[in-house]
Amino acid sequence: MFCEIVRGETPAFVVLDDDDHLAFLDRRPLFPGHVLLIPKQHIETLPDLPPAAVGPLFERAQWLAAALVGDFGAAGSFVALNNTISQSVPHLHVHIVPRNRKDGLRGFFWPRTTYADDAEAEAVAERVRAALHE
Amino acid sequence: MFCEIVRGETPAFVVLDDDDHLAFLDRRPLFPGHVLLIPKQHIETLPDLPPAAVGPLFERAQWLAAALVGDFGAAGSFVALNNTISQSVPHLHVHIVPRNRKDGLRGFFWPRTTYADDAEAEAVAERVRAALHE
Repeated sequence: MFCEIVRGETPAFVVLDDDDHLAFLDRRPLFPGHVLLIPKQHIETLPDLPPAAVGPLFERAQWLAAALVGDFGAAGSFVALNNTISQSVPHLHVHIVPRNRKDGLRGFFWPRTTYADDAEAEAVAERVRAALHE
Repeated sequence: MFCEIVRGETPAFVVLDDDDHLAFLDRRPLFPGHVLLIPKQHIETLPDLPPAAVGPLFERAQWLAAALVGDFGAAGSFVALNNTISQSVPHLHVHIVPRNRKDGLRGFFWPRTTYADDAEAEAVAERVRAALHE
């Protein structure tokens, strides 16, 4: 499924795209701006990732977490990944989620929200991209 | 508080200790073997971490996640960190949590458990250390 996004066969609201990584909006976000960051290579879990790829992946997670509390305007962020258990898609993905005080998040499996339409999702993606490039 | 553990002023069940990193058991684990990995330097959040330190920190998170599904015997793991919001201690810490099928975890803020006593915690820490050194 994520490989289809990498190959451009499934559309996504991309916020970061380089040789080895892709980050795009989760379509069922905990909060708007919830991003999934993946290695383009099909790697199932963090233990499977080549050690040399760990730093570059999490440097990008850091950029995204910084962007969310930067121009995007969140008060904090939640960075998380599931390996095997509770992992909905068997392709390593790091969740980077904007957080705010009293946002009601009590757990990672909290009911998800959705974007009203593609225009709303694209507007949020654009805010994340702009914050990344600050 | 974590700096006191780094300085040896507060005891902890340490599973990994090198020049720049320390990992030890969370005293109120989601599940036994729940580890906290920190940079020894007092860094508050992931965006504050020097970029050159991101790779080494998450390489160790990878080692720990691999150890939990290796000799420690978990079916999977959950790797997560909170920046500012829901961050109980203002010193960057990565949670590495063993997961198993039907373990009942529905959210990150699920009621914590405890170790019965120091001997039980030390036995769990020893299993994690052994799995790390496999």
